[in-house]
Amino acid sequence: MKTIKLAIAGLGRIGKIHLKNLCRNFPEVDVVGVMDVLDESKNIADEFNVNYFVKTIHELIALPDLDGIVICSPTDTHADYVEKAAKAGKHIFCEKPLDLSLDRVQEITAIVEQAGVGLMLGFNRRFDPEFKKVRELVVNGSIGEPQIVKITSRDPGPPPVEYVKVSGGIFLDMTIHDFDMARYISGKQVKEVYAKGAVMVDPEIGKAGDIDTASIILTFEDDTMAIIDNCRRAVYGYDQRLEVFGSKGMAQAENNFPDNHKLYTESGVSGALPLHFFLERYAASYNQEMKEFIDALVSGGKMPVDGNDGLMSIAIGLAAKKSVKENRPVRISEII
Amino acid sequence: MKTIKLAIAGLGRIGKIHLKNLCRNFPEVDVVGVMDVLDESKNIADEFNVNYFVKTIHELIALPDLDGIVICSPTDTHADYVEKAAKAGKHIFCEKPLDLSLDRVQEITAIVEQAGVGLMLGFNRRFDPEFKKVRELVVNGSIGEPQIVKITSRDPGPPPVEYVKVSGGIFLDMTIHDFDMARYISGKQVKEVYAKGAVMVDPEIGKAGDIDTASIILTFEDDTMAIIDNCRRAVYGYDQRLEVFGSKGMAQAENNFPDNHKLYTESGVSGALPLHFFLERYAASYNQEMKEFIDALVSGGKMPVDGNDGLMSIAIGLAAKKSVKENRPVRISEII
Amino acid sequence: MKTIKLAIAGLGRIGKIHLKNLCRNFPEVDVVGVMDVLDESKNIADEFNVNYFVKTIHELIALPDLDGIVICSPTDTHADYVEKAAKAGKHIFCEKPLDLSLDRVQEITAIVEQAGVGLMLGFNRRFDPEFKKVRELVVNGSIGEPQIVKITSRDPGPPPVEYVKVSGGIFLDMTIHDFDMARYISGKQVKEVYAKGAVMVDPEIGKAGDIDTASIILTFEDDTMAIIDNCRRAVYGYDQRLEVFGSKGMAQAENNFPDNHKLYTESGVSGALPLHFFLERYAASYNQEMKEFIDALVSGGKMPVDGNDGLMSIAIGLAAKKSVKENRPVRISEII
Amino acid sequence: MKTIKLAIAGLGRIGKIHLKNLCRNFPEVDVVGVMDVLDESKNIADEFNVNYFVKTIHELIALPDLDGIVICSPTDTHADYVEKAAKAGKHIFCEKPLDLSLDRVQEITAIVEQAGVGLMLGFNRRFDPEFKKVRELVVNGSIGEPQIVKITSRDPGPPPVEYVKVSGGIFLDMTIHDFDMARYISGKQVKEVYAKGAVMVDPEIGKAGDIDTASIILTFEDDTMAIIDNCRRAVYGYDQRLEVFGSKGMAQAENNFPDNHKLYTESGVSGALPLHFFLERYAASYNQEMKEFIDALVSGGKMPVDGNDGLMSIAIGLAAKKSVKENRPVRISEII
Repeated sequence: MKTIKLAIAGLGRIGKIHLKNLCRNFPEVDVVGVMDVLDESKNIADEFNVNYFVKTIHELIALPDLDGIVICSPTDTHADYVEKAAKAGKHIFCEKPLDLSLDRVQEITAIVEQAGVGLMLGFNRRFDPEFKKVRELVVNGSIGEPQIVKITSRDPGPPPVEYVKVSGGIFLDMTIHDFDMARYISGKQVKEVYAKGAVMVDPEIGKAGDIDTASIILTFEDDTMAIIDNCRRAVYGYDQRLEVFGSKGMAQAENNFPDNHKLYTESGVSGALPLHFFLERYAASYNQEMKEFIDALVSGGKMPVDGNDGLMSIAIGLAAKKSVKENRPVRISEII
Repeated sequence: MKTIKLAIAGLGRIGKIHLKNLCRNFPEVDVVGVMDVLDESKNIADEFNVNYFVKTIHELIALPDLDGIVICSPTDTHADYVEKAAKAGKHIFCEKPLDLSLDRVQEITAIVEQAGVGLMLGFNRRFDPEFKKVRELVVNGSIGEPQIVKITSRDPGPPPVEYVKVSGGIFLDMTIHDFDMARYISGKQVKEVYAKGAVMVDPEIGKAGDIDTASIILTFEDDTMAIIDNCRRAVYGYDQRLEVFGSKGMAQAENNFPDNHKLYTESGVSGALPLHFFLERYAASYNQEMKEFIDALVSGGKMPVDGNDGLMSIAIGLAAKKSVKENRPVRISEII
Repeated sequence: MKTIKLAIAGLGRIGKIHLKNLCRNFPEVDVVGVMDVLDESKNIADEFNVNYFVKTIHELIALPDLDGIVICSPTDTHADYVEKAAKAGKHIFCEKPLDLSLDRVQEITAIVEQAGVGLMLGFNRRFDPEFKKVRELVVNGSIGEPQIVKITSRDPGPPPVEYVKVSGGIFLDMTIHDFDMARYISGKQVKEVYAKGAVMVDPEIGKAGDIDTASIILTFEDDTMAIIDNCRRAVYGYDQRLEVFGSKGMAQAENNFPDNHKLYTESGVSGALPLHFFLERYAASYNQEMKEFIDALVSGGKMPVDGNDGLMSIAIGLAAKKSVKENRPVRISEII
Repeated sequence: MKTIKLAIAGLGRIGKIHLKNLCRNFPEVDVVGVMDVLDESKNIADEFNVNYFVKTIHELIALPDLDGIVICSPTDTHADYVEKAAKAGKHIFCEKPLDLSLDRVQEITAIVEQAGVGLMLGFNRRFDPEFKKVRELVVNGSIGEPQIVKITSRDPGPPPVEYVKVSGGIFLDMTIHDFDMARYISGKQVKEVYAKGAVMVDPEIGKAGDIDTASIILTFEDDTMAIIDNCRRAVYGYDQRLEVFGSKGMAQAENNFPDNHKLYTESGVSGALPLHFFLERYAASYNQEMKEFIDALVSGGKMPVDGNDGLMSIAIGLAAKKSVKENRPVRISEII
C-alpha cells in the first residue's frame, strides 16, 4: 500500500486530535512531521513517533516526499500557510476560517486553484453521523423539497474575552459552522441574511464590540429559508440540533448524550445532559473528515468541502455582521 | 350555587366545541341560548337542551338574565357583536381576532373598558397543558431569564383559497396565535418584527396576495428574541412545538401524539404521527379557557387574555405583513 | 333514537366514573337509577338528574323498562348481583372480579348463559388507547407471531392493609388485570403459571398473608410466554407498560404522562412523572369500555370481555397463588 | 513509563478487537506476541507490528518478560490456557466462559489463586457506559434498595447450528452474560433459578437439544428478583436493555442507536434501528474492560471480574438448564 505522507502545522487542541486520529486510525498514512511554536509540543510528537518536529512552516513544507499538510495553527496564520503549501504543490486540509478578510480568502483560493492542489476546509460538522443522516434523508428525497432549515447551536460557555476580541466576532467564529451547515444540508446558495444580536451572557463581550446571543434568518436563492439561533452559553451544555422541514416531511437530528439512561424517582424522570464539549460531541466527525480528506487525496477527486465553501461561509458571516449593525437584511451580493 | 347564564353566537366548528364543553363540564353554567344563521343548527341546540335558538345577535343579547356571551361567529362580525354585547353590559368571550383593522380594535377595546364588562380573547393555546407547563417553568425561574423563545407552528394543510382571501393573511389568521404565545410565554412586549415569507405550498395562495411559509424574528423590549416558523402544510400533521431558552436552562414542549406506541421491525423503529387536527390537539385547552373565563366572570377578576392582548397580537401581525412587503424590520411603534 | 335504560349498583370511585361518563358522553343512554348503601350518594344521583336512588339491588333491578345494569359495588356482592340481574333478564356490566371462588364464578357464568343475557367484565385496560394500539399491531401482523409478552404493572402505593386482607391477595386483586392483558394481547390461552413473590413494601402485608412484589412467567398453550412484574409501590407513580415481541418485530406501549415537557438545566434533563393514579391514567378506557358495552348491548353482538374471560383470569390468579405457596409451576388444568 | 508486555491467544473476531484496542489506545502496553492456528492471522499481527507470531500456547507463554496473556481462543481451550498461564506466573484476561464443566472451573480458579496471578473474565457488558451508569445509580442509592432487575437480551440472529451443538446451550453461551449482569447490577448472589424455554426461531436448534427463546426468574438471597428474557433472533437487531426497580426509584438503560435522527412523513415518525451487532454495540466496553484489566494489573489490585464471577455465572447457567429440563425452580446449592 502506498503510504501517504502528511505533516501537521499546529499542535493545539484540534491539532492533537488530528495527530491522534491520523496515527491510530489510518494505517496508510504516515505523519512525518509536526510544527509547533512551543517546545513542549515535541513530547506529543514523540509519543506518536513522529520523525520531525520543527518550528517553522518552511521546514514543515520542505519535509521530503510530503503529500499534504494539515493546518491547525491560529486563524491569522491560515492564509499564509495555505498559500505557502499550495505554491509548494502540497494538498491542504485547513481548519476554518481561511481568513477573516474576504479579499484575502479570494486571493488564496485563486492561488490554490492555480496550483492545482486540493484544499479542504475543516467544517467538521458535515461529517457528524447525525447531520450526515439528515443530509442523506434530504438527498434521497425522504422529506421532499427543503423549505425551512432550523439550526440550534449553543456553546456550553463563552471563550475568554481576549479571544473574542480577535475572533472576528460570533458570526465568523461560531456561527460560521452553522452557515456552512445551512448550505450543506440544503444544497442551496444563500442570497440574503437578516441577523439580530444581543449581549445576554457577558457585558464584557459587548464591550469588546461583539454579541453573544443571535437569531438569524438566511434566505436561499429559491426563497426557502434557514433559521439559526446561537448563544455563547447554554448552562446545560453543548446544544447542537438540526431540523429540515420539506414538502414531504421533516428530518431532525437531536443532541448526542453520553448515555441513554433514565432515572425515575419521586421528584421526576431525568436523564443525562448532552455531551458537553465539542471534542467529545464531534469526535466521530474529526475522524471522518480526515478519512474523506485522505480519500479525496488518494483518488484525486473533489474535496468534500472546498475553498468556495470557505469563502461563502465568510461572506455570509460578514453579511450577518453588517445586518446586525445596520438592522436590515443584507444581500450576499453586497459583500462579494 | 348561582347559575351563570351564557349564550353562544355562532355554531360553527368552534362554537360547537364551546357548547359541548359548557353543557357537559360546567354544572354551574346554563347555556340559555344560541344564535346561528343556519336553520340546521337548531338541531344541535336541541341536542343540548338549549332553550332559545335565535337568528340575530339582538335577540341573543336580549335573552333574560344573561351574564355573558361567547362569540364564535365569523371574524368580520366579532367587533360588532363585542360592541353590542358590551353596551348591553354582558361579559364577553370572543374568538380571535377582534377585527382585522387596528383602529376598530382600539375603538372596541375602549368601548369594552367604558362598559366595565370583562372581555376575554380566545387565544386557546395559552390554556394548553403543554404550554402552560412551560410558562410555569418560566414563571418559577427554572430556566432563569428567557433569552430566546422558539415557536414551531405548522398546519396539516392550507384552508381553501377563498378563505385565505378574506383571512387578513397568514400573520393575522395563523401566526397571530404564535405572536400571542411569544408574549404570553415570555411575559414581555414585542418592539420589532422581521418577517420573511414565501409561497411553497400552493401558488393560488400567492395569487391571492398571501404567503404560506414564513420565518419571523420578534425582538422584545429587552432585546431578547422570539423565532417563529410557519407553514400552511406539514404533510405529517399538526406541528406545534415551543422552546424557551434562558440563562439557567431550557424548557421544551413537544407535540402531542394519539398514543406512545413504538413499533420495531426490520425496516426501522416507528411511532404515531402528532395529533392531526387542532380540535383534537387543543381539546383540553378549549375546556380550560372556558373554565378560566367563567372563573374570572364569577370572581370579577381580571380576564386571563384581555382586549390589549388582542390588540397587540394584531399590531404584531400588521408589522409582520409590512415587514415582508418592505423586506425590513418594522417597529411596533410604526403601527400603533 | 331508542333510549337505552341503565342502572348503576354502587357509587364508589368507579361507580361515579361510569355514572359521569354515561350521563355526559352517551346521549342514547338514560341512567334511570342508582343504588348505594350510603345516603350521601343521593346527592351525586341528583347532580346527574338520575330519577331513582335506591338502597337495594331488588329495587334497582325492578326499575321499569331497564335494559341493563352496571355493577360497581364491593367484590363480595358481584356474584349475587350478577345472578339476580341475569335471572331478571337484564344485561350486565360487572367490575372485576366476578368472585374470588372459582366454583361460584363457574356457577354464575352458567346462569348468565342460561338467561341469555350479555355479561361484560370490567377489564378496562383492554380499552386503553395505548394497549389497543399494540393489540392492533399484533392482529394486523406487524410483529408476526407473538413470542414473548412483557407486562410491567406497578401501583403508586399499596391499599390499606384492611383491604389487602379481604382482597383475595395481590394476584386476584391487582395482577388479575395483567393476566387478562396477557390473554387479550396475545389472543392465546394460558396453560401454566410460575410465580415468585416477596414482601418488600410493607411487612404488614406479609403478616396479612399476602405479598407485595411479584415476578410471574405465564406459559401459553403454544409454549410462548408472558412475563409480568408487579409491585404495590412505585415511588415514581403508576407504571403501566406493555411489550410484545414477535417473529417480525416488537411493539411497545409506554406510560402516559400529563405533558411532554422537557427541562434542561445544569443538573440534568428532566420531564414529568407518569400519570399517578389509575383514574387519570385509564380515563379514556373507562369511557371506551362503556361505549363497547353499549354497542354490544344495542347490536346484540358478543360482549368484548365475557364471563369466560373473567373465569380464566381468576383461574390464573389461583394458579399463581398456589405457585408461590408451593414454589413450582402450576398448570391451569390443576385449577379448573 | 514501564511498558506492560501482553500476548494474545486467538485472533478471531474478539481477539482482533483486543489487539486493535491494545495497540491503538494503550501507549503503556506492548503486545509482544500473538498466537493463532491459522497462518493468515500473521498478516494481522504484522499490520500491528507485533514481533512474535506463534502457533502454540507454549511458545506464547514463553515469550520473554511477558506480564500477561489475553485469551480469546475457542471456549474448549480456555481452561487449559488459563492453567498454563497461571502456572507460568502470568496475569490472565480470559473470554467467558472459563469452561462448560463446573468442576474444571473450580479446579482452575483454585490453580489461579494458588499461583497468585490475576484472572479477569471477559464479561464486557459490565464495562458498557449504559450499564455502568445504571450500576452507578444503584450504588449511589438513587433508586434505593433494588427489588426487581429486568434484562432484555435478544440477538439479531442465531449462530450456525453447528456452533449451537458445541456451545453448551443458550444459557451457557448467551444468557451467561445476563446472569453476570444480574449479579453485577444488583450486587447480590443468586440462590434459585426458574427458566422456561421454547424453540421459536429454528427447529434445527431444537433438534440440537437446545432452545432459542427463554424467560427466566432469578431469586437473589434476599428474595428480590431478576427477570431475563432472551431470543436468538430479533429481526429489528440487537436488543440489549436493562431496568432496575427499587424502593426509591427505577433506572433504565435503553438500546444504543447509530444516530438520534427522527423522520416525520405522511406515514409516521421513524428512527434508526438499534446498533445491530455486538461488536458495534459494545465497542466502548471492550476498550474499557482492557483499561480496567491493565489498571488492576499495574496496581496489583483486585480484578474487576474474577474467577468466582465466572464460576457463579456457569452455576446459574447449569441451574437454568436443569430448570428447563425438569420444569421446576432449581437452587444454586443443588449445583455447586
